[in-house]
Amino acid sequence: MKIKATVLSLLTVSVLAASSSSIANEPVQPISPVKDINLAEVELGKKLFFDPRLSKSGFISCNSCHNLSMGGTDNLKTSIGHKWQQGPINSPTVLNSSLNIAQFWDGRAADLKEQAGGPIANPGEMASTHTLALDVLQSIPAYTTEFKQVFGSREINIDQVTQAIAEFEKTLVTPNSRFDQWLLGNKDAINKTELAGYNLFKKVGCTACHNGQALGGGSFQKMGLVKPYKTANKAEGLSGVTGKDADRFKFKVPTLRNVEMTYPYFHDGEAATLTEAVDVMGQLQLGKKLTGTENAQIVAFLKTLTGEQPSFTLPILPPSVDQTPKPKPFD
Amino acid sequence: MKIKATVLSLLTVSVLAASSSSIANEPVQPISPVKDINLAEVELGKKLFFDPRLSKSGFISCNSCHNLSMGGTDNLKTSIGHKWQQGPINSPTVLNSSLNIAQFWDGRAADLKEQAGGPIANPGEMASTHTLALDVLQSIPAYTTEFKQVFGSREINIDQVTQAIAEFEKTLVTPNSRFDQWLLGNKDAINKTELAGYNLFKKVGCTACHNGQALGGGSFQKMGLVKPYKTANKAEGLSGVTGKDADRFKFKVPTLRNVEMTYPYFHDGEAATLTEAVDVMGQLQLGKKLTGTENAQIVAFLKTLTGEQPSFTLPILPPSVDQTPKPKPFD
Repeated sequence: MKIKATVLSLLTVSVLAASSSSIANEPVQPISPVKDINLAEVELGKKLFFDPRLSKSGFISCNSCHNLSMGGTDNLKTSIGHKWQQGPINSPTVLNSSLNIAQFWDGRAADLKEQAGGPIANPGEMASTHTLALDVLQSIPAYTTEFKQVFGSREINIDQVTQAIAEFEKTLVTPNSRFDQWLLGNKDAINKTELAGYNLFKKVGCTACHNGQALGGGSFQKMGLVKPYKTANKAEGLSGVTGKDADRFKFKVPTLRNVEMTYPYFHDGEAATLTEAVDVMGQLQLGKKLTGTENAQIVAFLKTLTGEQPSFTLPILPPSVDQTPKPKPFD
Repeated sequence: MKIKATVLSLLTVSVLAASSSSIANEPVQPISPVKDINLAEVELGKKLFFDPRLSKSGFISCNSCHNLSMGGTDNLKTSIGHKWQQGPINSPTVLNSSLNIAQFWDGRAADLKEQAGGPIANPGEMASTHTLALDVLQSIPAYTTEFKQVFGSREINIDQVTQAIAEFEKTLVTPNSRFDQWLLGNKDAINKTELAGYNLFKKVGCTACHNGQALGGGSFQKMGLVKPYKTANKAEGLSGVTGKDADRFKFKVPTLRNVEMTYPYFHDGEAATLTEAVDVMGQLQLGKKLTGTENAQIVAFLKTLTGEQPSFTLPILPPSVDQTPKPKPFD
């Protein structure tokens, strides 16, 4: 029994060693577990992420458009904002967003912390102001106590609010997808069609942009590299940030992690299905018309990228008090 | 040591016996733990409760207006519906709603199951139809499998949908509030002011309507019994159900459980604070102008009614597939 166990663990080691060297040669890497997390900030940030009182209406929270029950998206072409305004762009998933080189489709926020302040004060999204949002939080004793505990002060500022939300968002990685299990050496984790899809995905050049842990999020690329992309959507991407004409229609390459859950696709949400998205990408970015079989193989591969979804208890929010500024949904 | 333990348990028994006989004399009863629950239905119902695909827009779920992070309400005067329509009435809490004699402010649904079908198909709320909602669910393989597991058939019908949601809602009771601990014999669970508030609450007559486990939910009463209630809200209550003129402005007495979390108050949401609500109730229902001290005592008592909030893992929803009818938020 003891000998068997030793043999087994030697085998395991050699399999892991082999797979670890083969992983290094792959353009896609397994998602690393979360490290160096401030748990108190995470718990506070989770509440803030779910708190609609950060919006003017008292109805819209971060989770409204980055719904953690639905792959960290709203599964709409473009989002619904304050007073049902139609958003200009598709809500990117918050899952694995800590792996992005920058935030928003046009990269206008350097990191999650900078991103988190945006929608709160955007008139088309949560339509509040940082001042009002802070007044709301500051009025609620349970919040001031928790901020004191986490940040050492009862005076809440926007820096703390966005820091806590960002720390929570850092926990929203989705490890252990079937594809990651395969990368880590479990060769039965994906089937032949899915493996064929992965090999094709590499061969035709998808991994030029969709690589790394997140299969995306690492660069800005022109939408319509080989053939122009036609859309009624007015977003122009990176050029709005850099001011360079050469950056027009360059958008951050989206992650393909959990892509089965994050429909519809592209910055304008115009591709309703993975089949359509793969077809358009093939033609416009790679100049390649994939056959039905090839397309289906890649789609099968993409569906192996669904990882373990964030699992946590729904936060209970501390109630407002008499002095808390009231939501104004219909003003 | 053994003798001490025996003495202690004899003491415990006698305290419990005493408190159990004193409980029987109280107009308020502790909340009973949930029994006879079908857990598979609960898990399915939890997903459905959080699934915005039951709405036309794909944006509004049961949890949007009965937010389980916020006392099972939206904390708005009246709710926000499809395309930001202003609802006609304040969203009642879903917490402990299984204890109500009927559902909705006007009692037009006999039970939770009947209630659950209403908002889905209400053009001012989720604005879907039962047919469309079923088409959405039926298209999603993970849902059909779960319905098969729970109800024995892959053919999903509205009866199963509302049954599962209602079963989940039955679990949303909030036991073990400080007041319940006091009722169950822990005399230190509430302080003197809170106890004075409870005694006053009984003495002035609040318990005529706010009694039982839920401190409400057991009868319909006229809003403005002694003096007329002035409101711009057009809801007329029970008369819309019974057709009787005598039932005009009769509404279901709301539960006072978790009332610190379920602001604003009354069917029109016009009382922003507990202080205001207690004052108006005293004058209009009991013909009594409470002093500031009396009001504060009752408010202190009411805040002891916050129980353990529902605690569960945020459900992960099965993704739509290519054939799933698309949400139409802006049509």
